[in-house]
Amino acid sequence: MKQFFHNPFLYSPLSLGAGNTITIHAPATVANMVCGFDVLGFAVNEPYDEMHFRLRDEPGVKIINLDEYNLPTDPEKNVAGAALLAMLEEVDEKTGVEVSICKKIKPGSGVGSSAASSAGAVVGLNHLLNNRFIKEDLVRFAMSGEKLASGVKHADNIAPCIYGGVTLIRSIFPLDIIPLAAPSLYVTIVHPQIEVRTSDARGILKQQVQLKDAIRQWGNIAGLVAGLLQNDHALIGRSLEDVLIEPVRSILIPGFDTIKQLSKEAGALGGGISGSGPSVFMLSKDENTAKQVEAAMHTVYNQLSLEHHTYVTTINQEGVRVLSPE
Amino acid sequence: MKQFFHNPFLYSPLSLGAGNTITIHAPATVANMVCGFDVLGFAVNEPYDEMHFRLRDEPGVKIINLDEYNLPTDPEKNVAGAALLAMLEEVDEKTGVEVSICKKIKPGSGVGSSAASSAGAVVGLNHLLNNRFIKEDLVRFAMSGEKLASGVKHADNIAPCIYGGVTLIRSIFPLDIIPLAAPSLYVTIVHPQIEVRTSDARGILKQQVQLKDAIRQWGNIAGLVAGLLQNDHALIGRSLEDVLIEPVRSILIPGFDTIKQLSKEAGALGGGISGSGPSVFMLSKDENTAKQVEAAMHTVYNQLSLEHHTYVTTINQEGVRVLSPE
Repeated sequence: MKQFFHNPFLYSPLSLGAGNTITIHAPATVANMVCGFDVLGFAVNEPYDEMHFRLRDEPGVKIINLDEYNLPTDPEKNVAGAALLAMLEEVDEKTGVEVSICKKIKPGSGVGSSAASSAGAVVGLNHLLNNRFIKEDLVRFAMSGEKLASGVKHADNIAPCIYGGVTLIRSIFPLDIIPLAAPSLYVTIVHPQIEVRTSDARGILKQQVQLKDAIRQWGNIAGLVAGLLQNDHALIGRSLEDVLIEPVRSILIPGFDTIKQLSKEAGALGGGISGSGPSVFMLSKDENTAKQVEAAMHTVYNQLSLEHHTYVTTINQEGVRVLSPE
Repeated sequence: MKQFFHNPFLYSPLSLGAGNTITIHAPATVANMVCGFDVLGFAVNEPYDEMHFRLRDEPGVKIINLDEYNLPTDPEKNVAGAALLAMLEEVDEKTGVEVSICKKIKPGSGVGSSAASSAGAVVGLNHLLNNRFIKEDLVRFAMSGEKLASGVKHADNIAPCIYGGVTLIRSIFPLDIIPLAAPSLYVTIVHPQIEVRTSDARGILKQQVQLKDAIRQWGNIAGLVAGLLQNDHALIGRSLEDVLIEPVRSILIPGFDTIKQLSKEAGALGGGISGSGPSVFMLSKDENTAKQVEAAMHTVYNQLSLEHHTYVTTINQEGVRVLSPE
């Protein structure tokens, strides 16, 4: 059975029952979006994790890894498992699920790897349960996975992963998620192969900030939301400024200032640290510009002899994608 | 001649030349808009100041008061005068203007009385100069009046007074004003007859704030902008929350918490301190609710035996209104 799940292409309605087995794609996400620390995030079309689900007759969660990351298969120590356990608590005592996970979003890259696991997990199980839970419930369950990953229940990757597009998390307690209709934008992401632990990136932040800096920050987030909703690319670009978090966190990312400068010179509207890093993202109006931004990123990290991966992609508008049973 | 200007109804195209004499209405404005401290503001249809202008052959600014407030007529000590002098510096050395001001917005009430004077002044003169300046220039000139009034160049009353509607001032240096298309909303304002000096209201603010409070604040301003642009009244209401400024400043306003509570019970979406107070504003979806909010405000201040004025009005969408020459 395990062997069977290692090759998802062998799935067949005949062997497993079409209604009980599904595959989902859980997208990477960019949290914070420069001036929207802890409240904004958006989903991208690449990279994404692939996950396969089937209901089991016995209760609990069984996790099978289809990738090379050797993540824990004990559900209580796995972010997808923790999210599924939180969800099953509100289902019944009999239902169980088996999930096979092929992660393509590298853990620790700063583009919502843990969120893709936990959000993908609850969307997949919900589909097998005939979508009995609404999206806000799914965010609530998936945050249990985020808490396992980073120690904090936060939703700025989870929410865009589940809703798609750009999402505002106005409040966590009570949960208040606002999907923002965003224009189609191209996204260039570079992931330098260094480790920045989320807990370290949080630890270096000052807990007190200057009121005048906070005012500048909320002027920018207001401008960014207006730019997105009014389809004003220039305003989006002007508003992608972070006077509070970026100056502190960017010191953990080699070449950050140069990446940003050359990306803007290549035509990017703007960008910054993805989540708590080390990935850096840039937004562009068109694909050609996004590719020139990618070239600029290569130039910087090649000069620094720093191994890195890049993606040129677009904003994902649908969130976790449930594929038809194969 | 002075006597003539004291009665604006005597204006006549025959005696003064229709092209050279105009009347404007400069609306009151509500700055901050609860969670948008220093960056948001909106104009209302009542109250408004009335001002009359004519070009003079001699340079400089002549100010004539048509009201009972005994404001300085020395242009350098009058906010309208300071704004006009800043503007004339960029015109030529020969042009002069005479302005007769009938203030209906009580100075110190917290609904942009000084901004109405300075914004009205520059819009009026600009009209006589065949609108040679764009609105951003007018904001720049009018800020010289605000600097005289409060010691700080700020635009959160000036900008909505000139542009109308709800405006975001994303940045002062460089100036970046974004008009936000707002749904039609009713506004109830109560002005308790106490004095709150802008400088005092600024002085009691802490210059450092908790990062977690700042995050909550920028989640709210993002929600408010989204609510306005997406015409989502419930979201507007939820976002009208200020965890930083209101808790400090509201202690200067008698009965503030009760006003707010009873207004919400009467159906208001939400509201808070107008500018630096002492006026308090509440937003409502319809006129009937706005009047019930007014009744609640009367109840509170009558119980406190506090003299007060109320307005039930709507958001002013056009800003300073230039009337045809009479």
